[in-house]
Amino acid sequence: MSAVGRRLAELQLTLPPPLALPAGTALPFPWVRVLGTRAVFSGHGPTRADGTLAEPLGKLGRDLSVEQGYAAARLAGLAVLGSLQRALGDLDRIVCWTRVFGMVNSAAGFDRQPAVINGFTDLIIEVFGAERGAHARSAVGMAELPFAIPVEVEGEVELRAG
Amino acid sequence: MSAVGRRLAELQLTLPPPLALPAGTALPFPWVRVLGTRAVFSGHGPTRADGTLAEPLGKLGRDLSVEQGYAAARLAGLAVLGSLQRALGDLDRIVCWTRVFGMVNSAAGFDRQPAVINGFTDLIIEVFGAERGAHARSAVGMAELPFAIPVEVEGEVELRAG
Amino acid sequence: MSAVGRRLAELQLTLPPPLALPAGTALPFPWVRVLGTRAVFSGHGPTRADGTLAEPLGKLGRDLSVEQGYAAARLAGLAVLGSLQRALGDLDRIVCWTRVFGMVNSAAGFDRQPAVINGFTDLIIEVFGAERGAHARSAVGMAELPFAIPVEVEGEVELRAG
Repeated sequence: MSAVGRRLAELQLTLPPPLALPAGTALPFPWVRVLGTRAVFSGHGPTRADGTLAEPLGKLGRDLSVEQGYAAARLAGLAVLGSLQRALGDLDRIVCWTRVFGMVNSAAGFDRQPAVINGFTDLIIEVFGAERGAHARSAVGMAELPFAIPVEVEGEVELRAG
Repeated sequence: MSAVGRRLAELQLTLPPPLALPAGTALPFPWVRVLGTRAVFSGHGPTRADGTLAEPLGKLGRDLSVEQGYAAARLAGLAVLGSLQRALGDLDRIVCWTRVFGMVNSAAGFDRQPAVINGFTDLIIEVFGAERGAHARSAVGMAELPFAIPVEVEGEVELRAG
Repeated sequence: MSAVGRRLAELQLTLPPPLALPAGTALPFPWVRVLGTRAVFSGHGPTRADGTLAEPLGKLGRDLSVEQGYAAARLAGLAVLGSLQRALGDLDRIVCWTRVFGMVNSAAGFDRQPAVINGFTDLIIEVFGAERGAHARSAVGMAELPFAIPVEVEGEVELRAG
């Protein structure tokens, strides 16, 4: 088992399968694109352990509390790790994190996006450690997100050469 | 003629000239920035064959149907290809696509951003093929976009070395 | 003194210290992530010379004029340069600018995001010159931004090897 895999087991975290798409939806792109030592990942929302979209859906500041948003961002992080695991074969190939763009479905007046996206960042630091997991980040408020998901995160990680 | 050029001709697609800016507008940046084997492209909206902004303008979920949004995203794709053609000289220099960030001007409650941005992705796959054209992607809902365009797409492609 | 440092002095520009976080806020990520010859910077808002968030806060099209938004984007640029200076030691390590993603907190109907983000772009061109400072750019309208800041900018620069 890889070092990151052991760490996930230690934290009792299980990575979800690929997103089970809502009926009638086509997403004609890969979840991860690997280019040399870069792996760029598509926007991921929160998914349940069975790969379906996690509830509650909706907007922060109207339908979800900050705590619920934080939990959703953590679930989005597990979904990203699941996609990276499938694309890379081994999460130990990740030398370090690069960039995280955290999007929060925001009702008028909600301005605590960083507290929500911390659910993603805290997970990555727990799993990869403070130095390897560190990433440049923005956490910002979107008008709407697909399927009314509360949080979506995209970004990039750096891979071991070869 | 380049292989991609032949493919565009086969599909009877013509790339538009650079955006004809609305009066009084200054955009003090290039449409494409090339760095070694990376070409990063700025946010592009839908343009007509003469380079002016394509109508309809406005928001998905209020002013445009999903079908009109899909068509607008396809036009944004042609505008991106036009800019890449001018910056690179030859679209065959593109080894593969990397990242696409698709922004949809969204009225309250509109959550079908992926169906709109598929207009961009489907074009890229038609022109470059499924493997070379594949890209990590997000498709998300913006509060507003410049000049009230319905769709804006930015991203990155990977170039052949040297 | 570095060449960029001399240019900043010539322009009588002073770079602010790191953001003084609003009480109760944790931002568990670095302002800049350096990977080989790439430096990726996190989303920065406008800060005062003492590192606190600059006022006015709020939305373009409701609380701030375009001129005030332009000034805020310029302040965000100074904050980014301050972070890059601290992360890199010497701004002369920046070979060129790559990508700028400019986010404008936008009230309904405000569509002049490019005129606002020009405050950032014009600063970078003034300091680094037209060729070295050129960057791919998007300037788009967000529903909300953290702490109600009017503008947030993230992006990437390219560094000298070694």
